[in-house]
Amino acid sequence: MFPEYDVIVVGAGHAGCEASHAAAMMGSKVLLVTMNMNTIAQMSCNPAMGGVAKGQIVREIDALGGMSGIISDKSAIQFRMLNRSKGPAMWSPRTQNDRMKFSEEWRLALERTPNLDFWQETVKEILVKDGRAVGVKTSLGLEIKSKAVVLTNGTFLNGLIHIGEKNFGGGRAAEKAATGLTEQLLTLGFEAGRMKTGTPPRIDGRSLDYSKMEEQPGDEKPGKFSYSDTTPLDKQVSCWITYTNEDVHQELQKGFDKSPMFQGRIKGLGPRYCPSIEDKINRFAERDRHQIFVEPEGWNTVEIYVNGFSTSLPEDIQYQALRKIPGFENAKMFRPGYAIEYDFFPPTQLKLSLETHLVTGLFFAGQINGTTGYEEAACQGLMAGINAHHTAHEKEPLILKRSEAYIGVLIDDLVNKGTQEPYRMFTSRAEYRILLRQDNADLRLTETGYKIGLATQERYDSFLQKKTSIDQLLKELSSIKADPETVNAGLESIQTSAIREKVVVAHLLRRPQIGMPELRQLSPDLKALLDKYSPEVQEEAEIDIKYESYIEREQKLAEKIGSLEEFKIKPDFDYDRVKALSSEAREKLKRIKPETLGQATRISGVSPSDISVLTIYMGK
Amino acid sequence: MFPEYDVIVVGAGHAGCEASHAAAMMGSKVLLVTMNMNTIAQMSCNPAMGGVAKGQIVREIDALGGMSGIISDKSAIQFRMLNRSKGPAMWSPRTQNDRMKFSEEWRLALERTPNLDFWQETVKEILVKDGRAVGVKTSLGLEIKSKAVVLTNGTFLNGLIHIGEKNFGGGRAAEKAATGLTEQLLTLGFEAGRMKTGTPPRIDGRSLDYSKMEEQPGDEKPGKFSYSDTTPLDKQVSCWITYTNEDVHQELQKGFDKSPMFQGRIKGLGPRYCPSIEDKINRFAERDRHQIFVEPEGWNTVEIYVNGFSTSLPEDIQYQALRKIPGFENAKMFRPGYAIEYDFFPPTQLKLSLETHLVTGLFFAGQINGTTGYEEAACQGLMAGINAHHTAHEKEPLILKRSEAYIGVLIDDLVNKGTQEPYRMFTSRAEYRILLRQDNADLRLTETGYKIGLATQERYDSFLQKKTSIDQLLKELSSIKADPETVNAGLESIQTSAIREKVVVAHLLRRPQIGMPELRQLSPDLKALLDKYSPEVQEEAEIDIKYESYIEREQKLAEKIGSLEEFKIKPDFDYDRVKALSSEAREKLKRIKPETLGQATRISGVSPSDISVLTIYMGK
Ligand SMILES: Cc1cc2nc3c(=O)[nH]c(=O)nc-3n(C[C@H](O)[C@H](O)[C@H](O)COP(=O)(O)OP(=O)(O)OC[C@H]3O[C@@H](n4cnc5c(N)ncnc54)[C@H](O)[C@@H]3O)c2cc1C
Ligand SMILES: Cc1cc2nc3c(=O)[nH]c(=O)nc-3n(C[C@H](O)[C@H](O)[C@H](O)COP(=O)(O)OP(=O)(O)OC[C@H]3O[C@@H](n4cnc5c(N)ncnc54)[C@H](O)[C@@H]3O)c2cc1C
Repeated sequence: MFPEYDVIVVGAGHAGCEASHAAAMMGSKVLLVTMNMNTIAQMSCNPAMGGVAKGQIVREIDALGGMSGIISDKSAIQFRMLNRSKGPAMWSPRTQNDRMKFSEEWRLALERTPNLDFWQETVKEILVKDGRAVGVKTSLGLEIKSKAVVLTNGTFLNGLIHIGEKNFGGGRAAEKAATGLTEQLLTLGFEAGRMKTGTPPRIDGRSLDYSKMEEQPGDEKPGKFSYSDTTPLDKQVSCWITYTNEDVHQELQKGFDKSPMFQGRIKGLGPRYCPSIEDKINRFAERDRHQIFVEPEGWNTVEIYVNGFSTSLPEDIQYQALRKIPGFENAKMFRPGYAIEYDFFPPTQLKLSLETHLVTGLFFAGQINGTTGYEEAACQGLMAGINAHHTAHEKEPLILKRSEAYIGVLIDDLVNKGTQEPYRMFTSRAEYRILLRQDNADLRLTETGYKIGLATQERYDSFLQKKTSIDQLLKELSSIKADPETVNAGLESIQTSAIREKVVVAHLLRRPQIGMPELRQLSPDLKALLDKYSPEVQEEAEIDIKYESYIEREQKLAEKIGSLEEFKIKPDFDYDRVKALSSEAREKLKRIKPETLGQATRISGVSPSDISVLTIYMGK
Repeated sequence: MFPEYDVIVVGAGHAGCEASHAAAMMGSKVLLVTMNMNTIAQMSCNPAMGGVAKGQIVREIDALGGMSGIISDKSAIQFRMLNRSKGPAMWSPRTQNDRMKFSEEWRLALERTPNLDFWQETVKEILVKDGRAVGVKTSLGLEIKSKAVVLTNGTFLNGLIHIGEKNFGGGRAAEKAATGLTEQLLTLGFEAGRMKTGTPPRIDGRSLDYSKMEEQPGDEKPGKFSYSDTTPLDKQVSCWITYTNEDVHQELQKGFDKSPMFQGRIKGLGPRYCPSIEDKINRFAERDRHQIFVEPEGWNTVEIYVNGFSTSLPEDIQYQALRKIPGFENAKMFRPGYAIEYDFFPPTQLKLSLETHLVTGLFFAGQINGTTGYEEAACQGLMAGINAHHTAHEKEPLILKRSEAYIGVLIDDLVNKGTQEPYRMFTSRAEYRILLRQDNADLRLTETGYKIGLATQERYDSFLQKKTSIDQLLKELSSIKADPETVNAGLESIQTSAIREKVVVAHLLRRPQIGMPELRQLSPDLKALLDKYSPEVQEEAEIDIKYESYIEREQKLAEKIGSLEEFKIKPDFDYDRVKALSSEAREKLKRIKPETLGQATRISGVSPSDISVLTIYMGK
């Protein structure tokens, strides 16, 4: 009934959508199996993409040829560049999205993808033969064959929803949990753990009093995620900010004795960085208020997402507490918040390609690897899709370095350090932050995306053109000199010191007071020069010049560590023979099987002296 | 946490959406409780509205102020007026719809409805106090109070899905069943039964070869359902027709030994008029082919609905058989067809208001009353919503007569005759077909809708205006005379006999060769006359004139029977005291408690002589 596929992707969340799209675009025959075709790319939680560090990831996905950026642009209702006042390493694009449109756009995009078939059902089992994944078995008992399988089950595996003292099975509110798969993976030798996450109540926007809140409009000149030709928004919807207060906290406290978290009914590890409201008032008892973002769910719907108010307290407590928030005095709930516990697989069981060590051709991506967040899921899906395609076609896996992409940092962290709680990306996790900016993701990754056959020719051409323009502009700025007579008046008008002799324009640009807009005001020649270049190219050149020394420093560091990265360790390397290793290091190295010496340095429990021992033993 | 509502509606299918909208628009405080807010107004089966007899119902819903017509117009991708070649009693509008958009438009419409709150959860129990429904209890144990409750659970109550030899719980593919409610209703003394229905597999449109099928485009001048200001389509999508053949039938037969229907695993009563494909080839063994309508699911999606191929045979049999259909040689399935069994409540337990006899303030509407079809469900929802509002406000119920609306026929049939299989509307069920046309639903019902506070002023005004225009046109056509000299040339050119003396124009219009388009060609005066009137008004006047005698005859009959209808029977009338009644009649009359002598005549088992006995006894 089914042909043999190259790749089967299980689950159509953010990870599964990217995985199936990528593999199919690269030429694999792909089957996407998901429990419910009406919930493709459902945003389980807040209707927003990007934000700090996550926005960078979306840009990276886009640069490689993934779809999350395009879909986010098409379904955006608001765009903001966060952290504009900080350095460019911190600039982070974020969209508020129309939940229904996001899902619809993904579905239509997948339907338009050649080589991609769909099947609506629950997968119960992975077919394994001689240590290789060879397909899946569904709840109807169908066996569907493939050369590689990507699992992206999100929060569905043995999902258990908690609200106050009640709990019931479910993968998301009103959706079934998926059973059977974890159990089979355990018999195959996998280790599984339990995590939890939560979501706030949904509110009827018609019942809110916005006059008591601060408006948070979108950027005046909205940007976008994709480097491709999506269009920026011409109208936007505002979000709103309000705050909890002592009254709210008191109401919430009344439910603590029924809290599934505080009473120990929830065993899973929760996200420390995305705590529930009860967690916040418990852990930060000194704070008398917490910020609440009131976010619309779409262009037309009245449904409101109460960001910052995730909770699993009993529904009546949620309700009473909500109504004490300014603007929420008459709030009506559509449904209560809840917490959900689900199975995950400690990601130390994976290779850097996201293939499992135990079963060749079996890949894990997304929330089942212990991460949280759409962007984290999507980028893993993308990489797993790429590498599943590579496995099916016997090619080398694509592994992004920590110095190349947040995606590289994320996967390297997961595989080498594992995670004790839902893993979320932060800029602080990256050691090469100034290299991994949102503005240059295309410069970093489009060539790679193109070479593997994912990024289109069009995308590649426009990247090449941008790169050439930047180089040319940099050359011009480093050769052309500004003349005191022409520019001094302008310099003084922006409170920066005059120049005494001719100065290379690039030097001027290093001054904090001077950016491209100021530069072009200094002389008609400069204006004419800059007008030849697009705003993106100007921005790129400006950052390159302003942050040159930082960039160089990080690049050098990356190269130094890179040499260890080049140093491959054979998969069957016998650590037992290296007697001088600490026993903890030996145990970890045997389990994680680092692919390079570089990777070995990042395994927690492997000390610098262990690395020296290894380096010597391996004859370096 | 919740206020006391006037009306709680359980379920947001077609019935629940109309019910909650109607009650809220009339001024009730309404809560709509549904299991999953993402599936509001899901079309469980084919993405189409209307058709023979059903199209009339949609027009009636619209005339009363319901939403199904407007939503269908907004989400239509194709419009056809079926049976154009037959008499106007048979004309039936039908749209093909965008499934996602239909659901989205309903949701947005409900969100915009004042007085209407939402709650996402499963209702487990009806709260009953002193024989009155006073609210519902949810799966979280919440008790929500109200003055009336409308149940519209569709196919969800103890839903059991069958595919070949497998079966599993579910309310629809990939959705949970609802448990608990039937069980409670049984303890309250209700009787429940089991029905079944089915759906075909969903197909990837990209895998079909349309060159082997007949195209079925929409009407050249597409009409619409709503009498309000929705706009007709300016572009349309085509459907396609193909046929099964002996090969297809042979493949299907291979699965008969695993058929849940033929092997007796399905106990529920199936729809005789909407049989599965295996039923068709079994029951009509002499037919060597069956028609298959290939229907797109929306403007953009590639998903295809295979109308006419509903089946619960094993999925591989479905697949092999499908591929033998011309154009389907390479068809890919998204998911198999299935049958579903579910609980229903024999509708003889209801009053004509759709309130239950057993529990005051408790209404049943939609598929749980043993009907099938969106339109049948929607109109019941509308009536139950109206009457729940009336109950909550202690007003008399609204009951439509059989001579007023298909809706009246439907409810009267259900309540008086019950149903042995899923009840579907046909024109043959109506004794006043020429009165109950699709073109005049507004003339029949808008005044009623307006009086109860549901149809808006705007709608009422435009109805009044149309009515006045029709009367005026009728008057003009019956007074103005055509002159042989002027019109005879024209008459001869359309092969109808010339006139010898002046003739009232209306008489000419009775000739089968002459309609309004022909009439206006006969003379410049006639053209000028008709140009003053809209096409709808002209159509109405033409039908009125052409079918005058039929219309009068049915009207007279309706009046005659109407007099019995006026003759109320007290709810506590003691049939035991009427010794001359047959015992079957007595038993039925005691159970159904007809509200009028007219209703009594339509109860199966109550003979004309029983009616005479009653009439005499009651002193009429
Ligand atoms: C209640 C809740 C609250 C959350 N809160 C936050 C938050 O505050 N912040 C944050 O950053 N992130 C949050 N998240 C996480 C975010 O939603 C996820 O990280 C992201 O959606 C994960 O994407 P995914 O593709 O891994 O899985 P999902 O989006 O969960 O998708 C999984 C897909 O797999 C399908 N599936 C599962 N099992 C099977 C099977 N056996 N067979 C076939 N199909 C299957 C499902 O139907 C679904 O389509 C929350 C998630 C939930 C559920
Ligand atoms: C598989 C299938 C095939 C069909 N085939 C045909 C066909 O060929 N031709 C045809 O004319 N009709 C067909 N139908 C019937 C048509 O879909 C229904 O008649 C119509 O949808 C009924 O509308 P409804 O409003 O009564 O119920 P539904 O549309 O079923 O809606 C019921 C609603 O109630 C909610 N709900 C149920 N229980 C609870 C609860 N306890 N608490 C809260 N919410 C609850 C559900 O979530 C849902 O929103 C088919 C239906 C199905 C499922």
